Amino acid sequence: MSRISPVLDRIDQNLDGSLARLFELIRLRSISTDPAYKADCRKAAEWLVADLKTIGFDASVRDTTGHPMVVAHHDGPAGAPHLLFYGHYDVQPVDPLDLWNADPFAPAIGEQGGRKVITGRGSADDKGQLMTFVEACRAWKAEHGSLPAKITLLFEGEEESGSPSLKPFLEANAAELKADFAMVCDTGMWDSETPAISTGLRGLVGEEVTIHAADRDLHSGHYGGAAANPIRVLARVLAAIHDDNGRITIPGFYDGVEETPTQVKQAWDGLGLTAEKFLGEVGLSIPSGEKGRSVLELLWARPTAEFNGISGGYEGAGFKTVIASKASAKVSFRLVHKQDPDKVRAAFRAFVEARLPGDCRASFEKHGGSPAIQLAYDSPVVTKARTALTEEWGKAAVAIAMGGSIPIVGDFQKLLGMESLLVGFGLDDDRIHSPNEKYELKSFHKGQRSWARILDALTASR
Amino acid sequence: MSRISPVLDRIDQNLDGSLARLFELIRLRSISTDPAYKADCRKAAEWLVADLKTIGFDASVRDTTGHPMVVAHHDGPAGAPHLLFYGHYDVQPVDPLDLWNADPFAPAIGEQGGRKVITGRGSADDKGQLMTFVEACRAWKAEHGSLPAKITLLFEGEEESGSPSLKPFLEANAAELKADFAMVCDTGMWDSETPAISTGLRGLVGEEVTIHAADRDLHSGHYGGAAANPIRVLARVLAAIHDDNGRITIPGFYDGVEETPTQVKQAWDGLGLTAEKFLGEVGLSIPSGEKGRSVLELLWARPTAEFNGISGGYEGAGFKTVIASKASAKVSFRLVHKQDPDKVRAAFRAFVEARLPGDCRASFEKHGGSPAIQLAYDSPVVTKARTALTEEWGKAAVAIAMGGSIPIVGDFQKLLGMESLLVGFGLDDDRIHSPNEKYELKSFHKGQRSWARILDALTASR
Repeated sequence: MSRISPVLDRIDQNLDGSLARLFELIRLRSISTDPAYKADCRKAAEWLVADLKTIGFDASVRDTTGHPMVVAHHDGPAGAPHLLFYGHYDVQPVDPLDLWNADPFAPAIGEQGGRKVITGRGSADDKGQLMTFVEACRAWKAEHGSLPAKITLLFEGEEESGSPSLKPFLEANAAELKADFAMVCDTGMWDSETPAISTGLRGLVGEEVTIHAADRDLHSGHYGGAAANPIRVLARVLAAIHDDNGRITIPGFYDGVEETPTQVKQAWDGLGLTAEKFLGEVGLSIPSGEKGRSVLELLWARPTAEFNGISGGYEGAGFKTVIASKASAKVSFRLVHKQDPDKVRAAFRAFVEARLPGDCRASFEKHGGSPAIQLAYDSPVVTKARTALTEEWGKAAVAIAMGGSIPIVGDFQKLLGMESLLVGFGLDDDRIHSPNEKYELKSFHKGQRSWARILDALTASR
Repeated sequence: MSRISPVLDRIDQNLDGSLARLFELIRLRSISTDPAYKADCRKAAEWLVADLKTIGFDASVRDTTGHPMVVAHHDGPAGAPHLLFYGHYDVQPVDPLDLWNADPFAPAIGEQGGRKVITGRGSADDKGQLMTFVEACRAWKAEHGSLPAKITLLFEGEEESGSPSLKPFLEANAAELKADFAMVCDTGMWDSETPAISTGLRGLVGEEVTIHAADRDLHSGHYGGAAANPIRVLARVLAAIHDDNGRITIPGFYDGVEETPTQVKQAWDGLGLTAEKFLGEVGLSIPSGEKGRSVLELLWARPTAEFNGISGGYEGAGFKTVIASKASAKVSFRLVHKQDPDKVRAAFRAFVEARLPGDCRASFEKHGGSPAIQLAYDSPVVTKARTALTEEWGKAAVAIAMGGSIPIVGDFQKLLGMESLLVGFGLDDDRIHSPNEKYELKSFHKGQRSWARILDALTASR
């Protein structure tokens, strides 16, 4: 008899109890961005502390200048790893309230598309997700009287409002929080059947470039053909950024970009998401990025240059024969792997400067920059977790990536020298941040079982 | 004794009288665009008719559905040419009135930059200009008892309000108005010393192009690198319109463009307007058009493609990681010589279509189109007029061109099969259409003398 089977059985038996606890947590209106809910946020933290104590965690509410953190520790066997699990108990605001089918803070079990779902604000993001881990610990403890690793829980109360207290808290409590690695449960599955580990998060460099030509707007009849036109200069600069194969031509841009391992690419291909299928949903069909790469590779493992806005000259109704004095564009670069945001920004600026007519100039405005997060596809942790997920779901778990970012992962790397395992059970249609948020009951149930299996895999004696 | 000398002497002697008459005309508030001045417009027409009758013209006020025309005929010697002279008696509105240094309709002689000027609305545009010709006729008639050509005068009262009645009037009175050629006095000198004949007016094709990509705005994190970006597509299209030498690459675009005769280009070079000088006034220095051509050739004899406006994506403050569903640009082409506006428009649209990714489309909006007017540089009429102007001003008259257009010239060509001689004595700083309009006293005086010399040159027995 394996040590995991009884834990899984207990999770199954306790599903109703775990749902009752999740509902209690959802009922607490912990909207972090709205000062009116400050007390509710604290109540959620206190609820978690109380609940964790029932499992045997040494749990406490830890004050910050904003909403409090919850930190809880539980010992493990000698020689077992130290694992830190991160989640957040705060939620997004609920307006517009009239678009909700029910009170956002009155959780319930409903049915959508033939599947049972848990409804309510925070059901998926992130209360439902974080409780999958707590319930896995509860079942394990109940069954074995101990946990298989030293486990630290860190639950934040400001994730939906910019995490102002997070970095100072990590820095002030680094010794306490530093573990062998972190587990973050704020991501999703590939689809409702296919579990996933997120190993890549693209970084971002934002730039606004303005081309300045004449010192005033000119009449195109009087000056056309003689005076530099900043829209023309800008168009030439932007058009030169991609070559005919969709590759970015800025010198040094690809420094730090790595080739994705063949087996990872094959796994992505196996997901069957064609460009026609992915782009077809928005009325497109042809990938705009580098030729010869799948749409998932383009989205997950290749850097981009995108033009997010452009403006210049007369933009109103009708026509005006003007040559503008300036024109500008908002340009962003999605970064992957080890690309350096500062170098990419500098290379872009040099690229623009090199293409200016001698009587024009460019000015730049910086709009943020963050490096990509690339976790190993095949570290022992990832490999064990993938096996555990595959066993639970009966379908091979895939290493996926995300367009957006999860700042905590970078903070763990930078401040605590700690890599993260990103596993979550959300689905694309969970409507997080929107009215009628839901979490699949299957995600909540099998999520608990998944974490139990992952804990087992990570701590099995070799 | 030449027949012209006494005419010139009489013009000199009658300068005060001619000024008194011009002042009478300026005092009439013939603002054509404002219905409140309808009666004033008619008064101006009636004043002209009465004045022309004193010279011996068969003059009449001719009603239209708008403001009336003035048409006047005077016989000439058998075998002499029939010349039509065009001007307009209506003027621009005068607001903002508080920017005028004096009542716009109280003409006066003032001094500006050490030179005597006639001030008042219409002093230059076009009452002062048209009276130069009338006074030349008056002096000739007084001296010789006849005029040297059959002369028809056509004075319009709606030039400043779109000339709605002009075409119908020309069509309805074609037989009466058709002359050997027309003389139009609504243009300017090269500078205050250098007389000019305008032989080219660039045409214009306006287009608005919109590139459509996804059927909604997309998040650049989720779709960047996969979804077509319409700003990128638009930038590539616009950037491809000019090659590295500033030449326009649209197939067929240069059809109908002619090389400017070497002697004309040399004459332009002789004007000494360098790119540094022309562009320096607006903070630029390098001509943006075709390499190897002077700035005046670029402005006067070469076609252009200009981007007058561009718009797409997020244009507000800050940054938004959006991939827009569409982006658009306003594009105009200045045409020269025999370029066909319809063909240029079609060629541009085909050029865009040929550069679209397969999953994007373009839509177009037409914003006007008119062909260029190119008059001969060296017809006998132009040559004679140039000689006459050169003699009067003591400086070689130049054939110049204009960025703007004078629709009447095209109408005369199309409706009456009649070429125009464009001679005028305005200066760039006359502030036509603006407060404190003025006309140089020298322009008014030597303008009369110029027309007398031109009449003499055009009718001299060979």
